[in-house]
Amino acid sequence: MLPDIEICRATSLTSIEAIANKAGFTASEFHSQGRFKAKISLSCLERLQTQTVGKLILVTAITPTPLGEGKTVTTIGLSQGMAKLGHSVMACIRQPSMGPIFGVKGGAAGGGYSQVAPMEELNLHLTGDIHAVTAAHNLAAAAIDARIYHEQRLGYDDFEQRTAMKALRIDSNNVVWKRVMDHNDRALRMVTVGRNETDKSINGFEREDGFDISAASELMAILALAKNLNDLRQRIGRIVVAYSHHGAPITTEDLQVAGAMAVSMKEAIEPTLMQTLEGVPTLIHAGPFANIAHGNSSIIADDIATRLAEFTVTEGGFGSDMGFEKACNIKAATSGKAPDCAVIVTTLRGLKANSGLYELRPGQPVPDTLFQPDHAALVSGFENLKWHIENVSKYGIPAVVAINRFPQDSQEELEQLAIMIHALPYQVEVALSDGFALGGEGTTELASKVIKQCQKVSTFTPLYQAQQTIEDKINAVAKKGYGAASVTFSDKARRQIHNMQEQGYGKLAVCLAKTPLSISTNAVIKGAPKGFDVPIRELKLCAGAGFIYALCGNVMTMPGLPEKPAFMSLDIDSNGNIIGLN
Amino acid sequence: MLPDIEICRATSLTSIEAIANKAGFTASEFHSQGRFKAKISLSCLERLQTQTVGKLILVTAITPTPLGEGKTVTTIGLSQGMAKLGHSVMACIRQPSMGPIFGVKGGAAGGGYSQVAPMEELNLHLTGDIHAVTAAHNLAAAAIDARIYHEQRLGYDDFEQRTAMKALRIDSNNVVWKRVMDHNDRALRMVTVGRNETDKSINGFEREDGFDISAASELMAILALAKNLNDLRQRIGRIVVAYSHHGAPITTEDLQVAGAMAVSMKEAIEPTLMQTLEGVPTLIHAGPFANIAHGNSSIIADDIATRLAEFTVTEGGFGSDMGFEKACNIKAATSGKAPDCAVIVTTLRGLKANSGLYELRPGQPVPDTLFQPDHAALVSGFENLKWHIENVSKYGIPAVVAINRFPQDSQEELEQLAIMIHALPYQVEVALSDGFALGGEGTTELASKVIKQCQKVSTFTPLYQAQQTIEDKINAVAKKGYGAASVTFSDKARRQIHNMQEQGYGKLAVCLAKTPLSISTNAVIKGAPKGFDVPIRELKLCAGAGFIYALCGNVMTMPGLPEKPAFMSLDIDSNGNIIGLN
Repeated sequence: MLPDIEICRATSLTSIEAIANKAGFTASEFHSQGRFKAKISLSCLERLQTQTVGKLILVTAITPTPLGEGKTVTTIGLSQGMAKLGHSVMACIRQPSMGPIFGVKGGAAGGGYSQVAPMEELNLHLTGDIHAVTAAHNLAAAAIDARIYHEQRLGYDDFEQRTAMKALRIDSNNVVWKRVMDHNDRALRMVTVGRNETDKSINGFEREDGFDISAASELMAILALAKNLNDLRQRIGRIVVAYSHHGAPITTEDLQVAGAMAVSMKEAIEPTLMQTLEGVPTLIHAGPFANIAHGNSSIIADDIATRLAEFTVTEGGFGSDMGFEKACNIKAATSGKAPDCAVIVTTLRGLKANSGLYELRPGQPVPDTLFQPDHAALVSGFENLKWHIENVSKYGIPAVVAINRFPQDSQEELEQLAIMIHALPYQVEVALSDGFALGGEGTTELASKVIKQCQKVSTFTPLYQAQQTIEDKINAVAKKGYGAASVTFSDKARRQIHNMQEQGYGKLAVCLAKTPLSISTNAVIKGAPKGFDVPIRELKLCAGAGFIYALCGNVMTMPGLPEKPAFMSLDIDSNGNIIGLN
Repeated sequence: MLPDIEICRATSLTSIEAIANKAGFTASEFHSQGRFKAKISLSCLERLQTQTVGKLILVTAITPTPLGEGKTVTTIGLSQGMAKLGHSVMACIRQPSMGPIFGVKGGAAGGGYSQVAPMEELNLHLTGDIHAVTAAHNLAAAAIDARIYHEQRLGYDDFEQRTAMKALRIDSNNVVWKRVMDHNDRALRMVTVGRNETDKSINGFEREDGFDISAASELMAILALAKNLNDLRQRIGRIVVAYSHHGAPITTEDLQVAGAMAVSMKEAIEPTLMQTLEGVPTLIHAGPFANIAHGNSSIIADDIATRLAEFTVTEGGFGSDMGFEKACNIKAATSGKAPDCAVIVTTLRGLKANSGLYELRPGQPVPDTLFQPDHAALVSGFENLKWHIENVSKYGIPAVVAINRFPQDSQEELEQLAIMIHALPYQVEVALSDGFALGGEGTTELASKVIKQCQKVSTFTPLYQAQQTIEDKINAVAKKGYGAASVTFSDKARRQIHNMQEQGYGKLAVCLAKTPLSISTNAVIKGAPKGFDVPIRELKLCAGAGFIYALCGNVMTMPGLPEKPAFMSLDIDSNGNIIGLN
């Protein structure tokens, strides 16, 4: 098969105007951005308010290898299969981050004949939404340090007199708003800012700080969870960026920077319309990771798509312990719209990797030997798939297992896997998914089974209720969600929980950050671990997003680059075309 | 008068397709980005290669106050005046940086009835070019630290064996590529990256570093100076980011990141087409500041505009000692196209500020008293205008002084100023410029005089030749250019000059970074200083941009936010409109 970028270039795409018309947007509801992208005006939501809401299908997966198991391929492939069957359908996916693109994983446009096109435009900058999040986030960070600097330089009284503003008396040891960058940049995890060997009046006041990747920004979560521009503005104003010397929370509103942040995100709140290689209208919006953020594309995009199309296919990042859990307990709880069906993507490669019999190093490509038949590994790794099927069934959501075929897979082993799944005592459907090699033609069976499951009455049950204590909610995700035996809160975490409860933030949801490479919090434990502990290192209040963010174990919110990063193969050829992107 | 943003909103704009047609682009040569912006494909340059090249008008100014003297207003106003006279005309300006927008100065779209529209789209994100520069720049920074980390973690031999790549042996004390951010963020001037209290294997290796504002990135200069995509790619590969332990220069090509950086800037190399309030086609491209960078919009945009239009109006940042000098000695030397006429913008306010009789603090708004008649201050500050007229004449470029009228100005004082200029012994024309209040109607006299000066035979002479030594070239700018009595090189600067000469970089141009608020390197010295010294603190090789960057005195390459930054007045109203932008 051709490389993804060549398949994409060889496909004749439809104009974005025609795609927008097909999706059901009126002429004033979209603004083309070049030939193949359009920004969608939120005015369409007013017009569509009375429309019937279509079915929402959430694609999730087994515990993945570091390269992923093809959730986006399946999401795009499934949408194309549904279209082949004559249904109206849209896909909703996240905007890819430059971190993985230049790091290990490469692009996130799907692959083969199930791609969002043009893939290089999706993978690089798109319509600038992630950059807007980064810019708005770092504006608040600059505002914090500037305020500390001017208040301390002048003294609180002089500051108040001179500016006619109230001094905020920010405790520079208690600033909880890091800076962000959309790159994998290990060296920025812990930094000292405001360094000044000689003179405090020059570079501000020294303090310890750090950078997260933009996908982990609370603003990214807000973009994905906001209902409209006004809700975005209100949520931004609730963000707590620091605490005063008296321990009082200081918000972006206190810094008078919330308005400017919202202004900076005014275009980002509009989803971007693109198309799949087979012309399925696709909305791209927001890009939170599912390990260190809530991992789902936006409520606004789903809201638009489900009012326009019979079926909307979206995805939650990583395995069902990650993005799927957060789709249910954070996204659906906010939007009020639960998924009508879940698709659990599995691969032979991924199951064998879950046997623990192969050495997989985070940040490194997976070994080719994973594609060779290995019955013992398959049987052992199968436990992981069972775990994810059971996990999805906990939420009362009907499911279909999609076996995402890789070109190198053995036919015999694929059939074996299907038999093993059929033999399970769950009401789950199974289908081979060949979207990568065949596009929509390869996913019609999957599409039929998904449509069938969508007819079932959903009995959606989230894992916890808002009124439970913060501790109980974290326990619910760790124990009922992951199957942990225990949860250990650090002293710091206990103190933070106490303060958040005191300050009235007890009713927020919880968002756990952990490795996606294991159901447990330890990346090397494969399969379906039991009896493990979930250590909660520290918490972060995300009052604007509406959740409390809990860091499990040694999870990092800024990835690093490997020895041979993906950027090394990228270039522009003599005709001005991009090469090396996949 | 209405605020700028309301004037802009009240104006009925032409579709960008119609503007592109009017400018002379064929349908395949532009891609609309929403209703009022379009990216211009560089393919147009091939078609236009045989066209006659029109006249290039460079707008410069006296030494400005921190708020500027209205160069962009005059640039846009003049282009509208020329159009009113029936000429074909285009304007070429830089993309505004978010630093000044959220900091002190506000937007950079012009003002009143001489604006580029829609001003909020120009001022915020535009088509993402500055973000692309920032992303490409910081990718190289992440690549450097990742390489240092992996080589030191594994040891050079193990690294080479494991990766089959040559160890670069980067001296972590000699990394010369800082990170960048498009904000005024004082606390990032000096930072420590890779901090790790416990374990080097987690956060990389600690070293001292800093951030510049994106406008000062060498990549921004490359974007502005490149001839085409291939030239951009080649220039990026020549960037020296660090030195090895043996003192050898290490380039982005050595890091195998140059290709990915070019990929990231592939859309940024296309200028963005917009329109003025009176429908003059305007190209926006690149955004280097003129104090800490070379301060002019792109060669590509000028190249396109001068082949399409009879007249192209562009501007160099700050006074004629700044952007104008660099337009002549760097930009024109690279492009081969010298300006045919210079417009020197002056204001009553700016001249009075140059008297030194008013207290002006950098980073603070100018006092209102500057608008009251003050003959002594005007006479004293007039010396500054004389200096700039003489400076422009040095280069053999015919000039027109544009007196940019502010609504608050006294008519009597404006007439006085015109008489003073007429009395000067220079072949300079003078015109009142009323673009702010009247648009093109207010600049027709200026336009006529500029057109007249464009008919003169240009005798363009740059200040120095490539083959002179680095020291001689810096001396030429400081003494012949600024009128300094002496130049003092620090020991560090002398060492750096020696090394650069040795390593074959002696033929590059020189780009001096200094305060724009004085002709000297000391911001508080107003008027037309004489007998001053120019201290050269240190140099930075910009082998990709093609110049050696010299930092004069204590100039900062990352601005800071003032006590009451401009962002405090920005917000979104209940109808979703931006308020507070000017």
